[in-house]
Amino acid sequence: MIKIVVDIQGADNGASSLVDGVINALRDNRDLYVCLCGDKTVLTAALDGVAYDESRMLIIDAPHTITNDEKPISAVTNKKDSSLVKGITLCKTDPDVGAFVTCGATGAMLIAAMMNLDKLVKSPTLICALRKPNGVPFCIADCGANVDCRPERVEDFARIGAAYMKTVGVREPRIALLSNGAEDEKGNKFTKQANELLKKSGLNFIGNVEGTDVLADSGGDVIVCDGFSGNVLLKTIEGSAKAAINQTRDLLEKAQIADESKAMLENILGKVYREYDYTTQGGALLLGFKTPIVKGHGAATAETVYHIIENAYALAKNGIVKKIQNEFGM
Amino acid sequence: MIKIVVDIQGADNGASSLVDGVINALRDNRDLYVCLCGDKTVLTAALDGVAYDESRMLIIDAPHTITNDEKPISAVTNKKDSSLVKGITLCKTDPDVGAFVTCGATGAMLIAAMMNLDKLVKSPTLICALRKPNGVPFCIADCGANVDCRPERVEDFARIGAAYMKTVGVREPRIALLSNGAEDEKGNKFTKQANELLKKSGLNFIGNVEGTDVLADSGGDVIVCDGFSGNVLLKTIEGSAKAAINQTRDLLEKAQIADESKAMLENILGKVYREYDYTTQGGALLLGFKTPIVKGHGAATAETVYHIIENAYALAKNGIVKKIQNEFGM
Repeated sequence: MIKIVVDIQGADNGASSLVDGVINALRDNRDLYVCLCGDKTVLTAALDGVAYDESRMLIIDAPHTITNDEKPISAVTNKKDSSLVKGITLCKTDPDVGAFVTCGATGAMLIAAMMNLDKLVKSPTLICALRKPNGVPFCIADCGANVDCRPERVEDFARIGAAYMKTVGVREPRIALLSNGAEDEKGNKFTKQANELLKKSGLNFIGNVEGTDVLADSGGDVIVCDGFSGNVLLKTIEGSAKAAINQTRDLLEKAQIADESKAMLENILGKVYREYDYTTQGGALLLGFKTPIVKGHGAATAETVYHIIENAYALAKNGIVKKIQNEFGM
Repeated sequence: MIKIVVDIQGADNGASSLVDGVINALRDNRDLYVCLCGDKTVLTAALDGVAYDESRMLIIDAPHTITNDEKPISAVTNKKDSSLVKGITLCKTDPDVGAFVTCGATGAMLIAAMMNLDKLVKSPTLICALRKPNGVPFCIADCGANVDCRPERVEDFARIGAAYMKTVGVREPRIALLSNGAEDEKGNKFTKQANELLKKSGLNFIGNVEGTDVLADSGGDVIVCDGFSGNVLLKTIEGSAKAAINQTRDLLEKAQIADESKAMLENILGKVYREYDYTTQGGALLLGFKTPIVKGHGAATAETVYHIIENAYALAKNGIVKKIQNEFGM
């Protein structure tokens, strides 16, 4: 049985509207067990009359919610009854928990994990798992947990990213360092040092990658960088791809094309747009603690919850913790 | 008369294939005077039989070329007869020169300018002038000249960016700071300090902007950041927009749509693609010296040369140096 703890509060949509995602994940994965943290009254009402395998769900009453507007440290310290803190605490106390899932506040999630969970590595890493235009998976590490860090940490990001890519079937993940030029000597002080360290790391380091080539197959499987640059990279990919598609849509709307063809073209554009709409995708992964964490977007829907539980389930099932330990020679 | 010095060597294409761009710029701007630095034999041969106003062109014989493969400092120090060094030297000695144009090596250009030109400000800034999807111009400052800098410099980048936006008709340019979150307190140490400084600067600072919103109208007119982040931003916009367009093209090719409609969408896609193909655009601007510099892409064609001369001409004609001095209260 794969046990996942789900914080069902803290997203923009209320817990009751997200429950369907949990039910669908339970239905599609027969060895999934979910500990659902949220207001018991709300959850019981939402589950009333719904058919699901009750033996694979535990409701943990956590009536309080931590919101994005609160200071993370004081919220985590004071709200012991919040779904986030209760959920994270369960991950710490129950060795059978395979992963934790939340769509709540990122800052509070980071703090709650730092304060409660055991670390596997010095700097747990926020990874975003994406797909290249040809459908091949890749990831960005770090994309926001370590916005001020030393070049030494990039090697950790690379190992954690490599461990993640192995859980999705990439045997020898190629590591590429985000920089402002492809040549080794290009970069700021940080990337020049990181480049030197990666070359000596024994990792499958393929060199620097520029923003233009991140989505190309040659751009590597794990893009490593400090968390600030990674966040800029991630959000700029999303913003620019969507902008280009929207621009195309606008021109298409004005064009003299038969309605039927137009509808088909709009379909194609919608399909590409959705691939870059990271809000609907599987969420970011906070890896490097004994419990892997999957963070969904605050604007999560039941579908988002379904996808992030699926991702958490896959991480646990494919032994992410063991794979990270292997990468670090533990 | 607006006098522009053009380094016609150092690009991937030879000088002779770029000369048409110069001739067309001369034809379209009756008060343009060009000092063309390159191998006199090559240029004379390329101009043989071409009709142009010889009274508005001076050929400066500079037979040597500085390439991308050379170490910038030694190349600039040793190759006094190179088109780059001769051109930059002319900018220094002739007070009538309004701008300098090159498609040669970026590193060598920076070094040659630093070694020879008088500075208006402490950190000259590499600016990339782009357009939002709605056609409105904006710029990124810095996008590569200052990859390691202090937060104080961001205020300079903002003033130089503002001066540039004023030359293209934006009266009160809105300054936005690239960060990993829209709220003032989001960011790394660098952006948090830069945010504080910009708030006190008296500039029209509208706050932080995330990668997702850089292309939105609300994203501001001048995106300021350190040169490393700016370079990642610039190249990621290009790479991601093009990737999304190419992905659409691939799906379109396989779709069962009437040939005529398909061709129309392909046209639209080509149009949008070209807007993000910064190689063909007007080049980056190195501003903050007494002579403004326009740097075209190494893969420049005659068309690129035409565009960057047009941009240099506009900078000079619209008084960029005076506008920068105004921004800095000189």
